[in-house]
Amino acid sequence: MAIAKNPDYKRIATEEAWAPTHIIERFQKLVGTIGDPGFDSLWGFYSTSPSQRAQQVFARLQDLGERRLADMDACGIDVAVLSLTSPGVQCFDAATATSLARVANDELAEACRQRPDRFAAVASFGPLEPANAAKEIERAVSQLGMKGAIFNSHTHGQYLSDPKFWDIFAVCEQLQVPLYLHPQTPPPAMIKPFLEAGLDGAVFGFGVETGLHMLRILTSGVFDRFPKLQMCIGHMGEALPYWMYRLDYMHGVTVRSKRYECLQPLQRRISDYLKENVYVTSSGYGWEPAIRFAQQELGVDRVLYAMDYPYEYEADEVRALDSMNIPLADKKKFFQTNAERIFRL
Amino acid sequence: MAIAKNPDYKRIATEEAWAPTHIIERFQKLVGTIGDPGFDSLWGFYSTSPSQRAQQVFARLQDLGERRLADMDACGIDVAVLSLTSPGVQCFDAATATSLARVANDELAEACRQRPDRFAAVASFGPLEPANAAKEIERAVSQLGMKGAIFNSHTHGQYLSDPKFWDIFAVCEQLQVPLYLHPQTPPPAMIKPFLEAGLDGAVFGFGVETGLHMLRILTSGVFDRFPKLQMCIGHMGEALPYWMYRLDYMHGVTVRSKRYECLQPLQRRISDYLKENVYVTSSGYGWEPAIRFAQQELGVDRVLYAMDYPYEYEADEVRALDSMNIPLADKKKFFQTNAERIFRL
Repeated sequence: MAIAKNPDYKRIATEEAWAPTHIIERFQKLVGTIGDPGFDSLWGFYSTSPSQRAQQVFARLQDLGERRLADMDACGIDVAVLSLTSPGVQCFDAATATSLARVANDELAEACRQRPDRFAAVASFGPLEPANAAKEIERAVSQLGMKGAIFNSHTHGQYLSDPKFWDIFAVCEQLQVPLYLHPQTPPPAMIKPFLEAGLDGAVFGFGVETGLHMLRILTSGVFDRFPKLQMCIGHMGEALPYWMYRLDYMHGVTVRSKRYECLQPLQRRISDYLKENVYVTSSGYGWEPAIRFAQQELGVDRVLYAMDYPYEYEADEVRALDSMNIPLADKKKFFQTNAERIFRL
Repeated sequence: MAIAKNPDYKRIATEEAWAPTHIIERFQKLVGTIGDPGFDSLWGFYSTSPSQRAQQVFARLQDLGERRLADMDACGIDVAVLSLTSPGVQCFDAATATSLARVANDELAEACRQRPDRFAAVASFGPLEPANAAKEIERAVSQLGMKGAIFNSHTHGQYLSDPKFWDIFAVCEQLQVPLYLHPQTPPPAMIKPFLEAGLDGAVFGFGVETGLHMLRILTSGVFDRFPKLQMCIGHMGEALPYWMYRLDYMHGVTVRSKRYECLQPLQRRISDYLKENVYVTSSGYGWEPAIRFAQQELGVDRVLYAMDYPYEYEADEVRALDSMNIPLADKKKFFQTNAERIFRL
């Protein structure tokens, strides 16, 4: 049974994936050629598996028209905040990534112009050319009306904790738009024990890789340098809200022991940054306990809805979250007003 | 201010580390020689750092007498379930590991015989010789009175999900004793992105490595083969309770899509095994929210206290957990009776 619009709140889904056919064709050509077993695992599966799951994801990703709108209607999703699917442009060489990001942002912005009532979007960029990346984010936000920027964790094994990338944080802080850290598979230097057990993807590897990236950003001092920067992470915070106490304790004692040159004192605790500089979305989590835990520990203004379409497309999850045992005011923040405020919809 | 014995319950700490001087000296000699950057990071630090933290941990680890008992008294710990500290014998070659485990178990059992009112212990074993490991677990439990067995995640990059190791699970199921999966640093094939950011240890790398190992065991079908086996994991379940929904969903769709030969259908969901075959201890977590979350999602009979001495030794944490806003009956389960039942104290 289809889910109707809710009279009490709009449902705004904030981590919804798309990929144009021309980029998917490039993904397909890249499989097996870039020395990245995670990329091969992910895109080898989605572009060749005869399984119903792969076929459906593959088809749905490429649609920005009637099929997607019908799927949104069937699940009662009013607005989707769209982004280029993982790993975005980050699997390509630096120059290709920069030019493809521009093309993808133009295409996505055009879809949003066609249906401003249903679509918004965040911009892709090629991290390996940080100055160009910053320019593209500025163009996408200022000229195309995009609502923020997104990247898919590591880029050829590199992490944005390295200060050479910090132009990217600077422009997001300056433009006052959120920077979304989305999962991808762990890099070659990490993936083997996951991949050999079939755990490199969304089941676990994604979350570990993304949580690690967020922690690297946090511990490198990015938020001391850019205190007004706001980032988003999906999947209920990639478990970081649950880890907060241990992160604070062990980061504190490790810094005080001067064990690592790269771990210097921060102005605040890890948990403070999570509570003041990070938003958490519910992508892939149709599960009240984790949502309420995050609301309780980070604050109800910090937790917002995402579906993770088309990787997760379950009407029952929307029903479950509609039925959460929380005050209506908090539910409206979760489904609607947090997203409106953060993405300035 | 010292913490008194509690009149309502004993405090039994269930993941408490020890290392005899002769094994620590072997660790020190091994640093830099076995091609394991995680081992070098961990034991390079604890055996050479002039920091107060390293010095205190180093000294406390080696004490099974007055100092440890005084520390337990100062924090109100009635009983400690002891184990050889990470990575235990697993950093040595297979034959050395087997013989050293026997020595360490004899020493630890002797300490327990001296103070049966204060100490209990779980047995070490060398996983790379599974038949010998099973024999040593049987000897330690049947002849030495040890309460279970413990291993420190990967052994030279190998995981107990491989059926060649399953004699170890078989003997624990047969003896009806718990098998504790304790952290160690990620293996060489995984550690680089953690280590280069100083996040390979207890702050994050430990938890990821241990959560991955538990998931590999779960998804390999160990609990379908040994349905009465009970395992323990520390650090509030290494975040797996928080991940449960996503683990169930993504494992399910991945298995159905036949994406990996190594991921075959299981008899139950991941979360079912966590609720029926896994105990979670609070080592390193003096934090009520995560404890209550795990109690709520796994059941109050599944969550038990640990301090993680000497790596974490904080009277304030005991006070915080004494003050948890939960029924006294549940608090007694947490601090005392779950441990008594599981470890048959």
